[in-house]
Amino acid sequence: MKGKVYLVGAGPGDPELLTLKALRLLKTADVVLHDELVGTEILAFVPTTAKPHNVGKRSGKRSTAQPEIHTLLVQYALMGLQVVRLKGGDPLVFGRVGEEIEALRKANIEFEIVPGVTAALGAAASTQIPLTHRELASSFIVLTGHRSSTDNSDWPESIPPSTTVVVYMPGYDYAGTAAHLRAIGVKAATPCAIISRATLNDQQIHQTTLQDLPSAPQLPSPTLLVVGEVAGLARSFSQKQESESLVSAILESIPHSTYDQERSE
Amino acid sequence: MKGKVYLVGAGPGDPELLTLKALRLLKTADVVLHDELVGTEILAFVPTTAKPHNVGKRSGKRSTAQPEIHTLLVQYALMGLQVVRLKGGDPLVFGRVGEEIEALRKANIEFEIVPGVTAALGAAASTQIPLTHRELASSFIVLTGHRSSTDNSDWPESIPPSTTVVVYMPGYDYAGTAAHLRAIGVKAATPCAIISRATLNDQQIHQTTLQDLPSAPQLPSPTLLVVGEVAGLARSFSQKQESESLVSAILESIPHSTYDQERSE
Repeated sequence: MKGKVYLVGAGPGDPELLTLKALRLLKTADVVLHDELVGTEILAFVPTTAKPHNVGKRSGKRSTAQPEIHTLLVQYALMGLQVVRLKGGDPLVFGRVGEEIEALRKANIEFEIVPGVTAALGAAASTQIPLTHRELASSFIVLTGHRSSTDNSDWPESIPPSTTVVVYMPGYDYAGTAAHLRAIGVKAATPCAIISRATLNDQQIHQTTLQDLPSAPQLPSPTLLVVGEVAGLARSFSQKQESESLVSAILESIPHSTYDQERSE
Repeated sequence: MKGKVYLVGAGPGDPELLTLKALRLLKTADVVLHDELVGTEILAFVPTTAKPHNVGKRSGKRSTAQPEIHTLLVQYALMGLQVVRLKGGDPLVFGRVGEEIEALRKANIEFEIVPGVTAALGAAASTQIPLTHRELASSFIVLTGHRSSTDNSDWPESIPPSTTVVVYMPGYDYAGTAAHLRAIGVKAATPCAIISRATLNDQQIHQTTLQDLPSAPQLPSPTLLVVGEVAGLARSFSQKQESESLVSAILESIPHSTYDQERSE
C-alpha cells in the first residue's frame, strides 16, 4: 500500500501560527523532510518515532539537491509512509513546490497541499502594516530580491502608486534594490520597512523611505522588505511578550515538568 | 482594567486551517465580533459564555456600519473584556482592518493582529496551483474585482508575463474583467481558474483561458480568480474527502485531548 505526501506550510516562524491541520499531520507523520527555516519549536511537535530530516541549507553543509528531495519523497511514499514535506511560510509561495508536485504526479504518488501563513502576512500582522488599505493600497505584489543588481528582468515594468510591494529575500544590496524600485516608478519618499525574523521573539523592524533605504542596517535574516504608503503605518514596538511566555510554557510543560518531575521525586 | 482586542484571521474556510493562536484566542474570548464569511464550524470553537456577534452582511439584514464596529470594539475593551475581531482569511488583506487599527490606536486600546491563511493561499493549495513557479511565475499580485466595468483606476497599468494575478471578489462580470486584463497586457491564451468556496467541502473549480473567461459559469460565492500560466497546472479533482471526515475528529480531539492539555499543563 502506497503512502501519501503532504506538502505543508509551517507558517512564518511563531509556532502558534501553525495551522491545526499542519499540527495534526506533524504529530502523525512517519517521516518529516523540512527546510532549514523551520524552527526547533515547530519540529518539537514531530513524534520521536519520526525523526525529522533537514533537507535545507545548513551552515557549513550543502543542502540536499532538489532532485534528491523528489527521490526521497517518492521512496518514502512507496514504502507506505505518511510523509510530511515541511516548508517555511506557505508551500506555494517561492517554495519550489511546483517541481515537487510534478515529480509526485509523475510517480503517481498521492499528495495534498496544506497552506500556511506566508511571511508577508506574518510580518504585516506583527508590525501592524495593512497590506491593503482603503485609501493607501488597493493591491499588493509579492516578488523576490535579485542576486545581481543588474538583473531585474523578472520584475514588473511599473508599480502603480496604490500597490504595496513585498520583497521576499531582499538581501543586503539595498542600494541596488532601491534603484530598481525607483526605476519602475516607486517614488523616493515612499515609506519602507525592513522586517527581520518576523513573528519570532527577536523580531526587529527598521522603518525608512526608499531614498534612505541604501543606508539601512543589515538586520539578521530572514528579512522581508515592505515598500508602500502602508509601511509608514507600522508600529515598531514588540508585541511578542505574550506569545513568548506561552510558547515556552508549551515546550516546557509537555515532556518534563509534570511527568518527569514526579518520577524523580 | 482595560481589555484587549485581537484582530484575528479565520483562514480561507476549512476550520482545520485556523492557526493554533486563533483557536486559543477564540476559546478564551469574552466576546467575538465576526464577519459573515466565517463559518459555523469555526464559530463552534467559541465558548457558550461568549456568544458571537455577526457584524457582517446578512441576507435581508444590513451589515453593521464600520464606525459602529469601531465603537463596539472600544466599548468592549473598556469593559475589560478580551475581544476577538474575527475576519475571513487574513485580517490585513482587504479586511478594512487599517481603519479598525486607527480607531483602536486613537482610543488607546491595546490590540494585537493575528495573521491567517488568506484566500489566495487556500485556493492555490486546494487546487494545486503554485502561485510562484521557477519557470512560469516569478511574482504574484493580489487585487480586487471592480464594481463597474469602466473603472480600473486602481489596477496596475501593466502585468508582466511572469506574474500570477489573483483577483479577490471578482464578481460575475467576467467579460469586463477579461477586457481589463487584456488591456493591461495579459495575453488572450493565458490560463484562468475560477475557484468557488475554496477549501470548503463544496469547493468547485472552472478552468479556462482569458479569451474564454466571458462564457465561464457563475459559481457560488465566495469566488477567486487566478490568471497566469500556473493556473493551467491546477488539478480539478476534489481532495476534500479526507479533510471532511477528519474535521469532526479534530473538533473532538485536538482542542481537548492534545493542544489544550499541553497549554494548560
